[in-house]
Amino acid sequence: MRIPVRVYYQDTDAGGVVFHAQYLAFMERARSELLNEAGIDLGRFAERHGLLFMVHELAVKYHRPARLNDMLSVSAEVVKLGHASLVFRQRVERDGELLVEADVTLALVERGRMRPARIPEELEQALK
Amino acid sequence: MRIPVRVYYQDTDAGGVVFHAQYLAFMERARSELLNEAGIDLGRFAERHGLLFMVHELAVKYHRPARLNDMLSVSAEVVKLGHASLVFRQRVERDGELLVEADVTLALVERGRMRPARIPEELEQALK
Amino acid sequence: MRIPVRVYYQDTDAGGVVFHAQYLAFMERARSELLNEAGIDLGRFAERHGLLFMVHELAVKYHRPARLNDMLSVSAEVVKLGHASLVFRQRVERDGELLVEADVTLALVERGRMRPARIPEELEQALK
Amino acid sequence: MRIPVRVYYQDTDAGGVVFHAQYLAFMERARSELLNEAGIDLGRFAERHGLLFMVHELAVKYHRPARLNDMLSVSAEVVKLGHASLVFRQRVERDGELLVEADVTLALVERGRMRPARIPEELEQALK
Repeated sequence: MRIPVRVYYQDTDAGGVVFHAQYLAFMERARSELLNEAGIDLGRFAERHGLLFMVHELAVKYHRPARLNDMLSVSAEVVKLGHASLVFRQRVERDGELLVEADVTLALVERGRMRPARIPEELEQALK
Repeated sequence: MRIPVRVYYQDTDAGGVVFHAQYLAFMERARSELLNEAGIDLGRFAERHGLLFMVHELAVKYHRPARLNDMLSVSAEVVKLGHASLVFRQRVERDGELLVEADVTLALVERGRMRPARIPEELEQALK
Repeated sequence: MRIPVRVYYQDTDAGGVVFHAQYLAFMERARSELLNEAGIDLGRFAERHGLLFMVHELAVKYHRPARLNDMLSVSAEVVKLGHASLVFRQRVERDGELLVEADVTLALVERGRMRPARIPEELEQALK
Repeated sequence: MRIPVRVYYQDTDAGGVVFHAQYLAFMERARSELLNEAGIDLGRFAERHGLLFMVHELAVKYHRPARLNDMLSVSAEVVKLGHASLVFRQRVERDGELLVEADVTLALVERGRMRPARIPEELEQALK
């Protein structure tokens, strides 16, 4: 999955570039669209199964900054699919140049008690 | 209620000043602390009564911008208390100078159906 | 100008709906795209002219909340164009239903001293 | 450095917990206050030296989620100080329980060309 993301004032900071945590928000958008394309609506998924995806671990490298009004391309790819967690590899690019890359590990948890949960068959199939 | 708010990079934009919508987030902090002081924990309130406060109307005037590392003072005062809504008057100041002011109207709604709800007696008493 | 906006977790709050100030961020995206379409790149505009658009006044009405994964349509239209300010009327809709509407007044200011500035001829022509 | 951070609606998402990228914003607050205490005002520092701190690398582990109205304690400690970069170790805790921990590597860059810059003597002394 690869989505276009425009940089607006709301994404930048007084350094004149995109605020570092905002790239993680861009990446969340790409993950959500990947899930949408696989037929998983996160809102309905949470209600139906009582399960939430929680970010469990992040490893991010920032190579170059994005600036106001840049048109970026943000990708998400599942690189590991376990029983209770999955890892996305994600890249933010501008005209083919790598700006930021990250490995984002998500764990599935029960909504109420926040305990680890097994990924439902339906979701596993959809992500393959 | 009056709370101190420091301006960090996360609050600013590439214009070098605080992003306009972020002052509304500062104001939400002051409203929450006013409710906390009145003994209302919004999280528990939502669970116990199944009720949510929703912003219904906003009127905001921006006079001067705040900048990185400024120390601001943000106030919240209830100026009108109706059966199903209340109005806060809020000000963002720096060294006594008015930067932003707003009237924020909140309505109480049922969490599930998002229908207007009457303000519970307990809350009405607490806010008086 | 009318842009599609998907609602992601980053836009929502613990009330299960879009955080009220986030609709203003959605609206900023639509204004920026209107300016882009008129040939105004805000980043370059700020550098070339030393001028910034600042939000000066906001009047917002919230009718219905948007939820996770909703696909919204956000519009921006210039309804008043003065010598030093302009007013946008903006609407957030879902399937033709009005969720939030706002009048957003912007003033043009000199970047350094934050003093009101006259809208350049080039910009005035572009916005007509 | 250790600062108190209250969780407001603006920090949470529809999962009922703090949005994962928002902990990084909390950590930025603690780093800024550490620098303030060391006599470094980031805004003036950027203007005087033409230098910016950019986040260069992030490694984050999420152990437990924070919820609406929680009172958190967020710490920042310099664990490595190089010629052109420094590493902060940061923790988000609630009542002594570790919720999130991160190593945040910052690089100093020239504001215009975004090229690596040597940390000024003044700053090195202040951080020791």
